[in-house]
Amino acid sequence: MFIGAQISLYPMTDDFVSVITSSLEALGPWRDQLRMETDDISTLLVGAPEVLFPALRDLYTAAASTRHHIVLRCTLSRGCPGEADDRICATKALSAPDTPLANRQSAALKAVSAAQQKGEIARAQFSLYVMGDGDHMEEIYGCIDFLKQSGCFDRTKNFCTRIKGDAGPVFATIEQAFCRFGPPEGHVTMDLTVSANSPSVTD
Amino acid sequence: MFIGAQISLYPMTDDFVSVITSSLEALGPWRDQLRMETDDISTLLVGAPEVLFPALRDLYTAAASTRHHIVLRCTLSRGCPGEADDRICATKALSAPDTPLANRQSAALKAVSAAQQKGEIARAQFSLYVMGDGDHMEEIYGCIDFLKQSGCFDRTKNFCTRIKGDAGPVFATIEQAFCRFGPPEGHVTMDLTVSANSPSVTD
Repeated sequence: MFIGAQISLYPMTDDFVSVITSSLEALGPWRDQLRMETDDISTLLVGAPEVLFPALRDLYTAAASTRHHIVLRCTLSRGCPGEADDRICATKALSAPDTPLANRQSAALKAVSAAQQKGEIARAQFSLYVMGDGDHMEEIYGCIDFLKQSGCFDRTKNFCTRIKGDAGPVFATIEQAFCRFGPPEGHVTMDLTVSANSPSVTD
Repeated sequence: MFIGAQISLYPMTDDFVSVITSSLEALGPWRDQLRMETDDISTLLVGAPEVLFPALRDLYTAAASTRHHIVLRCTLSRGCPGEADDRICATKALSAPDTPLANRQSAALKAVSAAQQKGEIARAQFSLYVMGDGDHMEEIYGCIDFLKQSGCFDRTKNFCTRIKGDAGPVFATIEQAFCRFGPPEGHVTMDLTVSANSPSVTD
């Protein structure tokens, strides 16, 4: 299994370099469990979901706490047939094969309810893509049902779903959506945007 | 058919609101052929690919010409089974069903070679996702082969491919990747990032 993300942090300020640099310090406690590669467009993080999502949460929380309008963007993937297995991705976060949808939904809700608050609001939207044979829309609708019960649901939009709340439960909800829907050995990807301190927020 | 994108423009400057506002004027000539909806995270554009991609190109070019470091981010989708047909999306840009991969690759190359230069460099990375039955990786590898011959190929990365060049052929290449690979009536999505004026560029 190969699991990871291409991530980018966009601070809407002249000082964007120092906001990025200081926020990256929040990845410190997670670095020995992640493989990282950076270029001018994005940073690759490779690792298990139970490391990857808390690391993203802490990066987001640090950047949001600068009070600048910042956006964290992630292209997440698991099980891509074109990627070689990597031991750093060994995980217990994926459901056992053939676990019924209802059981996966309740396991996901239990995990979200245990998430700690982080003190920063996160407004996120994402799309979950399930590749390969089988009814991919059934898994996506099953995920949307979970989101509606997660406590973070905001609204559906064309092509994606919005959630909002404290960064703790919001990133836990995103982790559960990524891990519990679509086959555990399948090719599943996510296109994720998380926004803080936008002057356009009206609610 | 329902075709469109959730797009966001991220200018890395204190003046981000005015960069966004002035860049959006570049959509003017395309507006009557697009349906648009905006919130604090993204703007929905619904329309045919032959309108959508030139509109994105012109928006990007206008934002890049401010010389600020800007990033245009797009979540693109066609044929999502959950979306109702919309007449504004009527298109001749998709290949006829069962057109062999080699023919689609050569049609894509021909379209890219006809693209006009726009005078701004675009560095892009994207992932193409083909949902539903059939060998989705064959279509993705076929698309990557096209990219390698497109004149804009930069390199493959985990989860995505990088291309670079003038914004004209770069956006034409992205349009062809979106339209010519994956079944014409299938559910195909793309996760796209285009970056200008980054201080981290080394080549």
